[in-house]
Amino acid sequence: MAAGPVNAAEPRLIDDVEFGDNVVVQPFTNLYGCKIGDDTRIGPFVEIQRGVQVGASCKIQSHAFICTGVTIGDGVFVGHGVLFVNDKYPRATKDGGLLQTETDWELLETRVEERATIGSGAVILGGLTIGAGAIVGAGAVVTRDVEPRATVVGNPARHVASRSRTST
Amino acid sequence: MAAGPVNAAEPRLIDDVEFGDNVVVQPFTNLYGCKIGDDTRIGPFVEIQRGVQVGASCKIQSHAFICTGVTIGDGVFVGHGVLFVNDKYPRATKDGGLLQTETDWELLETRVEERATIGSGAVILGGLTIGAGAIVGAGAVVTRDVEPRATVVGNPARHVASRSRTST
Amino acid sequence: MAAGPVNAAEPRLIDDVEFGDNVVVQPFTNLYGCKIGDDTRIGPFVEIQRGVQVGASCKIQSHAFICTGVTIGDGVFVGHGVLFVNDKYPRATKDGGLLQTETDWELLETRVEERATIGSGAVILGGLTIGAGAIVGAGAVVTRDVEPRATVVGNPARHVASRSRTST
Repeated sequence: MAAGPVNAAEPRLIDDVEFGDNVVVQPFTNLYGCKIGDDTRIGPFVEIQRGVQVGASCKIQSHAFICTGVTIGDGVFVGHGVLFVNDKYPRATKDGGLLQTETDWELLETRVEERATIGSGAVILGGLTIGAGAIVGAGAVVTRDVEPRATVVGNPARHVASRSRTST
Repeated sequence: MAAGPVNAAEPRLIDDVEFGDNVVVQPFTNLYGCKIGDDTRIGPFVEIQRGVQVGASCKIQSHAFICTGVTIGDGVFVGHGVLFVNDKYPRATKDGGLLQTETDWELLETRVEERATIGSGAVILGGLTIGAGAIVGAGAVVTRDVEPRATVVGNPARHVASRSRTST
Repeated sequence: MAAGPVNAAEPRLIDDVEFGDNVVVQPFTNLYGCKIGDDTRIGPFVEIQRGVQVGASCKIQSHAFICTGVTIGDGVFVGHGVLFVNDKYPRATKDGGLLQTETDWELLETRVEERATIGSGAVILGGLTIGAGAIVGAGAVVTRDVEPRATVVGNPARHVASRSRTST
């Protein structure tokens, strides 16, 4: 675990985060209980929750929200304002009216494979896999798995193209 | 009015807010002139504007924006990055080119009834009612009222299901 | 260059910004290397990047992200959570796996003309022109130019109306 960004005069909250080498974290960020790989850059107004693993050489852009249950491979681009989801039927309260706690719902895990690109403003529902090198268009709402090297766009996101294995 | 979260070393701006008991407010939040009910939890990067009322036992998730004119019942889930709107034709300036002021537009009021769930990234246009127990899918753009216990998804949001009165 | 908002006790980061007169900048903002015209108001949780020019009498609402390559005319309304894009195929890394740098991609420039309105949650792809007085509906994903005084909505955004030259 290398020395990484710390709470400084700039408004940045970092708690129990394991950083690789050369990680850059912008101000106005709230990171806790997560692991960030070498050379990854994290923009302002980003929250990354407990248990998240982000690979090396990723770009996590401003206003992104990465929730518990998400694993991100190496070289992934997460655009501005991208939102991940980890709960199929989120509710504030249990049937009796008490606030839900962490034991009252099933965590849906999502995996984003290496070199995928998620365009700005996309929403990624829980329990999905975004394949290696896939492209999610800006503003897409992804409700199903995305194949490696596929491109999806729209709400709900639909497949519009695939690149061959030899292209990058 | 109970003692609630206050401006502390953590970057949190709270001005003229009436808190119920046991409210939790995360850092990087901008709350002013609003009323927050007992046991409600408010995530980071949230803005809640003047005049808003949020009920008890709600979860207001990160990056949400709740504007003047919105009233939220008890037990409501407001997902990450949810945006409310209170103006049908927002403009920066009046016809003469001067900046609009609060007297130059009609405030559209929106009501979210008890136990409704608004998925992450949803946009809720002004002047609407989201009925009790309704579910707004992640990324939906809601342009019409949503019936109690109905589920809507898409852009514009369309009705896809309703639950019976006896289910929760 | 008038005296404008500065870093103060409130959490606000302003670096190398040229302000006109009477600019208001809310807290939790990250502005750098940009130029902001007279009487413009900038909400909380906003990032404006290097090289951006914002005209006079604009409203830039909370959670908006305005990237390098964007030019905004006078009297423009940029809604809450609006995201601009400046790269057609954003990637985290180059083919060899190294992190992309500013020389590895083509900057797409976007222009928003005077008195246009961009609704909350809209995503504006790169390389486009939003014409004078145009209206982009809340939650729209704009993939093509928008004519002056036209209204577009949806994902992808489609033309639904135009106003005459004499109306405002």
